[in-house]
Amino acid sequence: MKGVSAKEAALYQRRREKVYDWMAREGVSMVMLEDAEGRRDSNLRWLSGQPGDALLFLSVERKAFLAPWDINLAQLYANADYLRPYAEFERRPIPACEKAAALFKIPRNSQIEIPPVTPYPRFLRFLEALGDYDVICREEGGLAVTLEQMRAVKDEEEIRIYRQASAITDELIELLEKNLRGGKIKTEYDAVQLIDGECRKRGCEGTGFETLAAGPERSFAIHAFPPSTTAPFGSRGLSILDFGIRYRGYTTDVTLTVAAGPSRAQEQLIALIEKAYKLALGMAQPGAPSLDIAAAVDALFARSSKTMPHALGHGIGLDPHEAPALRNRGDNTWVLAPGMVITLEPGLYAPNLGGCRLENDVLITEQGPEALTASRIIRL
Amino acid sequence: MKGVSAKEAALYQRRREKVYDWMAREGVSMVMLEDAEGRRDSNLRWLSGQPGDALLFLSVERKAFLAPWDINLAQLYANADYLRPYAEFERRPIPACEKAAALFKIPRNSQIEIPPVTPYPRFLRFLEALGDYDVICREEGGLAVTLEQMRAVKDEEEIRIYRQASAITDELIELLEKNLRGGKIKTEYDAVQLIDGECRKRGCEGTGFETLAAGPERSFAIHAFPPSTTAPFGSRGLSILDFGIRYRGYTTDVTLTVAAGPSRAQEQLIALIEKAYKLALGMAQPGAPSLDIAAAVDALFARSSKTMPHALGHGIGLDPHEAPALRNRGDNTWVLAPGMVITLEPGLYAPNLGGCRLENDVLITEQGPEALTASRIIRL
Repeated sequence: MKGVSAKEAALYQRRREKVYDWMAREGVSMVMLEDAEGRRDSNLRWLSGQPGDALLFLSVERKAFLAPWDINLAQLYANADYLRPYAEFERRPIPACEKAAALFKIPRNSQIEIPPVTPYPRFLRFLEALGDYDVICREEGGLAVTLEQMRAVKDEEEIRIYRQASAITDELIELLEKNLRGGKIKTEYDAVQLIDGECRKRGCEGTGFETLAAGPERSFAIHAFPPSTTAPFGSRGLSILDFGIRYRGYTTDVTLTVAAGPSRAQEQLIALIEKAYKLALGMAQPGAPSLDIAAAVDALFARSSKTMPHALGHGIGLDPHEAPALRNRGDNTWVLAPGMVITLEPGLYAPNLGGCRLENDVLITEQGPEALTASRIIRL
Repeated sequence: MKGVSAKEAALYQRRREKVYDWMAREGVSMVMLEDAEGRRDSNLRWLSGQPGDALLFLSVERKAFLAPWDINLAQLYANADYLRPYAEFERRPIPACEKAAALFKIPRNSQIEIPPVTPYPRFLRFLEALGDYDVICREEGGLAVTLEQMRAVKDEEEIRIYRQASAITDELIELLEKNLRGGKIKTEYDAVQLIDGECRKRGCEGTGFETLAAGPERSFAIHAFPPSTTAPFGSRGLSILDFGIRYRGYTTDVTLTVAAGPSRAQEQLIALIEKAYKLALGMAQPGAPSLDIAAAVDALFARSSKTMPHALGHGIGLDPHEAPALRNRGDNTWVLAPGMVITLEPGLYAPNLGGCRLENDVLITEQGPEALTASRIIRL
C-alpha cells in the first residue's frame, strides 16, 4: 500500500504549522480533535488527511499523534508523526488523551484544549481524569473558531480543486438538462442516479451530501423528505434538484429548479428568485459584510410579502456547510474576503405553488465575485 | 396536504405518554430534544414523526411543542400539540426553550432537562439564560438513556416494519447475487446503483447509510474510503458490500462478502468468519449479556492470532447504530431481550488478503434468535 505523497504530507504539515504557531501564541500545550459518529470533524482531514473516525492530538512542540479507528486506512491516507490504533485505548478519548499527554511530555498544569462540541457530562469526566492539567473547552478564542477562520479562506491548492470540482458539476448540469429535455429523466430518482453515476465516472468520491430531488408534488419543502423517491420530476410545475459532488474531499453545492409549464404565480416566483440571485451575486464583493447581502435579499422578498425560510447561503469546503455564514442575523459578523468559496441560494416555497431555489458556488476574488458553477432555472 | 394519520398520531402519542410518565416520576417539568446538523437525534421522529431539523419540547403536563425548521414538512409528517416555525426564534434553541417554558407555564425553579450531547459552552449559556429554572444536562438517569432503553426493545409495529424491511433487503441480496453471477455487477458502483435504485422501487426512503462497496483492492478497510468507486467488484479476491435500506424510517444493515477464486489463506479467513457468525448467532439468546457473546467471538479469533478491529454488532432502528451495544468492553452491561433487533457482523481485515465480514440482522424472540436477513459469503 502506498501512503500519502510527499507533496500531500507537506501540505498537511504546513497547515499544522499554523496551528502550532497559534498554540504557542495562546499558551496551549496540547489540543485534541475528534471525528466520531455524531461528532464529525473534517479538521482531521484538513490537518492530517485522515478521512474520518480518529482522534488527532497536536503538541506545541510541533508534533502530531493520530489514533485512527482503522489503522489500514490511516496508513494509506494520513500523515502524522505518531500513529497508534484507537483500539489500543478501547476507543475511549480520555485514555487516548492521557497517552498523548504522556507521549508529548506535557507539563503538569499546562493547557489541554478539547473540542468545543464536547458534551457537558463528558467534559466533567475529562476534568476529573486529567486533573493534573488545565483542560479547556471553549468556543470563543478556541482552536475550532481559529480553524474555521483559517479554512474559510481557501488556499491555492483548494481553489484549484474547486475549479475542477465546479467543472465536473457543470458537466453534470449540462447532462441533467439534456436528459430532462430528452425525456430520459422522468422521476426524482432518475436525476439522483445520473448524478451518482456520472460523478464517480469523473473521479469523484461520491456526492457531497445526499441529493435532494423533489418533483412538483414535493418541492414545497426546503429539504425534501425523503431526499428522493420515484415520483415524477420535471413534470408540470416546479421541481427542485439540490446536489453537490465531492472531489478530493471538497464538495460543491448547487440547486437547479426545473419549471415545466409554470403558472403565472410560479413565473412570478421564478422571476423573484432570479432577481434575488442577481442582487446577491452583485453584492458578493470582497469586504462586504455577508449580513448586508442576506438582509438585502430578505428585504427584496419582503417587498413581495414573501419570506425565505433559510439563510441566503454558506461557505463550502470539506463540509457542505462551513464558514463564512451568509445569514441575516445579528450575530453574523462575517466579511467576505478573497479566497472564500460560498453558495448563494435564494429560495421560496409554498404548499400550493411548490418551491423555487437557485444556487451556485461563488469564489470571492480581489476583483469581485466569480460564479464557479452555472446552475440555473431550466424551463421545459 | 394530508398530515399524519390518526393511527400514526396515536402511536406517537403513546410513546410520548411513556416519556410523560417518566417525567412525572423523575420530577422533570420539561424536556428539550434537538435534531440539528451535527447533532442528529432520531428521538424526534420516534416521538412526533418529524423527520428532522427541529426542536421538541415535552411538558410534564403531557403536552408537546414542536419547532421545526421547515413548517411545511412538519405539517405533513409530524404530530404535536403545538407547532411553531423555528425561524420565529431565529433558529436559536435558547429563545425557543424560553418560549416553551412560558407556553407550558413551567414553574420557577423546576427542572428542565436538555440533551446530554449539549456542548459544555452552550450548556453554560443555557444556565445563564434560564436562571429561573434548574437546567439539567446528564447522561446517567437522564431522558436520553431512558429513550435508548425504551427504543432498544421494538414494539409490535416496529417489528412488523422490520419484517418488511428485511424481506426487501433479502430481495436485494438475491438480485445482487444474480447480477454478480451474471456478470452485470463489475464495479463497486454497479452494486451501489442496484441497491439505490431497487430499494426505491420497493418504496424505501433510500438507504439507511451510504453503501460501502469495496472490491479486492480496498476491502482491507473496515469502512472503505471513499465508500464506493468504479474499481472492480467481485473480481479475484475478497470484496465487501455493506448496505442497509431505510423503510418507513427503519434501517436494515447487512454485509455480504464476495469471494472470487479465494486463496487458501482467504478461505481460512472466510471459514473463521462463518464459524464466528454461527457462534454469535447461537449465543444471541434472550437473557444473554451481549458482552459475553462479543468476548466469545474475540476469543475465537484470538485462538487464530486474529483481532477484530470493531464491535461484534449493535442494535438498529431509526438509527443505523443504536442500543443495545454488542461490544467486548467492561462498560457494556446490555442483556439481550425479546424485541431487540441487532446486527451480528464478525469481520477480519488484512492489507495482503483483504477483508471478510458477514453481517445479518437478528430479532431476539422469547424462543431465541431469529435471523431476519439472509446475507452470506457469495463464492464466485
